[in-house]
Amino acid sequence: MSEALAALRAGGKPAMARALSALETGFDPLALPDADMVALLDAAAADPLGHVIGLTGPPGVGKSTLTGSLLARSRQAGLSVGVIAVDPSSQISGGALLGDRTRIRTAPDDAQAFVRSLAARDRLGGLSDIAVAAAILMRAAYDRVIVETVGIGQSEADIGLVADTLVLCVQPGSGDALQFMKAGIMELPDIIAVTKADMGASARRACADVEGALGLVAGGGGWKVPVVAVSAASGEGIGDLLSAIDAHRGWLEREGRLDARRDAQALAFIRDCLRTRHGRVGLKRVAGHILRSDAGTPFSALLRLIVQVGA
Amino acid sequence: MSEALAALRAGGKPAMARALSALETGFDPLALPDADMVALLDAAAADPLGHVIGLTGPPGVGKSTLTGSLLARSRQAGLSVGVIAVDPSSQISGGALLGDRTRIRTAPDDAQAFVRSLAARDRLGGLSDIAVAAAILMRAAYDRVIVETVGIGQSEADIGLVADTLVLCVQPGSGDALQFMKAGIMELPDIIAVTKADMGASARRACADVEGALGLVAGGGGWKVPVVAVSAASGEGIGDLLSAIDAHRGWLEREGRLDARRDAQALAFIRDCLRTRHGRVGLKRVAGHILRSDAGTPFSALLRLIVQVGA
Repeated sequence: MSEALAALRAGGKPAMARALSALETGFDPLALPDADMVALLDAAAADPLGHVIGLTGPPGVGKSTLTGSLLARSRQAGLSVGVIAVDPSSQISGGALLGDRTRIRTAPDDAQAFVRSLAARDRLGGLSDIAVAAAILMRAAYDRVIVETVGIGQSEADIGLVADTLVLCVQPGSGDALQFMKAGIMELPDIIAVTKADMGASARRACADVEGALGLVAGGGGWKVPVVAVSAASGEGIGDLLSAIDAHRGWLEREGRLDARRDAQALAFIRDCLRTRHGRVGLKRVAGHILRSDAGTPFSALLRLIVQVGA
Repeated sequence: MSEALAALRAGGKPAMARALSALETGFDPLALPDADMVALLDAAAADPLGHVIGLTGPPGVGKSTLTGSLLARSRQAGLSVGVIAVDPSSQISGGALLGDRTRIRTAPDDAQAFVRSLAARDRLGGLSDIAVAAAILMRAAYDRVIVETVGIGQSEADIGLVADTLVLCVQPGSGDALQFMKAGIMELPDIIAVTKADMGASARRACADVEGALGLVAGGGGWKVPVVAVSAASGEGIGDLLSAIDAHRGWLEREGRLDARRDAQALAFIRDCLRTRHGRVGLKRVAGHILRSDAGTPFSALLRLIVQVGA
């Protein structure tokens, strides 16, 4: 293990906070990534400790509250937890309009729970390259990482760059679940959580709608996407959701699916970073030079390819 | 007026269909834009005939149905109408899952109503450069252009590249309107339509929620964003929505706001196309060479800048 990664793991929350701050300056999309940062990120990518849960869905569905519940339950189970809350900052005012993230409650003196808010990409809703890199760092230090992001659109695709298990949150009465399919996002989640399950009949109808819609989508490689009703208010279903996440993890670990998924994510992340930095034309120029073996050291591969595009 | 634009206007729906097909091949983000296409687009940009209404909101809110109502009412009023329905194609299957767009009904032999579906950008939810260019072509040929796009995220920002009047659709019971503010999208719309107004009390509550949320946002240059309850089913509020659109148009036309808005859109579109093609690094390289005067001929300016980035 690299010394920098060992120091990150031994250094607790202050070390993680420093690493994430360094990431925000050392991983500037307009400059070459910092070499020390690249080495740390590659070490972290190669030595994942935890499981990454992606939590996404439209505004108002109750993701932050659900994140809080998952965080608390995981801590009760003795797991260390890192949370990345991607903040869809206002485009015009340039900052979050409300202190939304204060809604995720965590004991400040709990050394095993770390919550970090990160701004979305310059475009609304997109997960930043930095958020993906931050999740990879956290994955190397915590048993469970939760990445929470708002929106229907870019963010769903982006969160697929890092989530081992992607949970899509929908709410009762939010319209026909078929609409999610139409928006092309029903193919991405591994688990669907119907929030506000204390709403009773409408929650059951929403579950049925979603299950109906799922029936129309071709299954993704043998995993049957479960639909779980949850209520952060009453605590109902939170245990079921965690069981579903564990079941998905178990399924991933069989037959090497987890490694394959993470390798594919690493390559997609390289492509995404290249496209952000050098556009579709730049990506096309080096796409043929992205190798399967780059998944093992994605950050130094990215650095090499950035140099190559510029050359 | 350019000959090509005159031919487009005189050629009716077949000519527009041909122009849009040519656009899809001649405006490839991996190649230099076709010179004839650039000339036609600049002529269209410089000679706008119609008013562009952007219609956006989450899946299931009823945008397609509302588009159909607006189309029908505008035709009854004797206006010619072009519709661009941006299709958030499935990322994985590579195509729309359902024939969603068939929901916008139009008489095929009505020469004054043209409906075209366009695929979203390669990322979910984003409006493609081609969709913006298509709207500019249609704006030069129809009295009213409606651009309909799904999603919360990228698409809201993108539709701002082309809409003269941006209508955000929300539905009753879809959660606290404050959530829209938190997602940073409450600053973008010019009008908010609360759909499914036949739902009664919940529609009124949704209107009140939205008005409350708007009260917390700083006004955008003196326009007070109206909240209109509409029901495509009963026809309720469609007239009010059209009146609000006309009122916004009138406001824009006073004191040169419409020209200023379209100029700003043209420059933002140039930046967006450059970023899509050449990334943030490429955009930065030529950003200082994007001039105010480029808004008058945005497509030839884009062609010049693309050559400059590559040089």
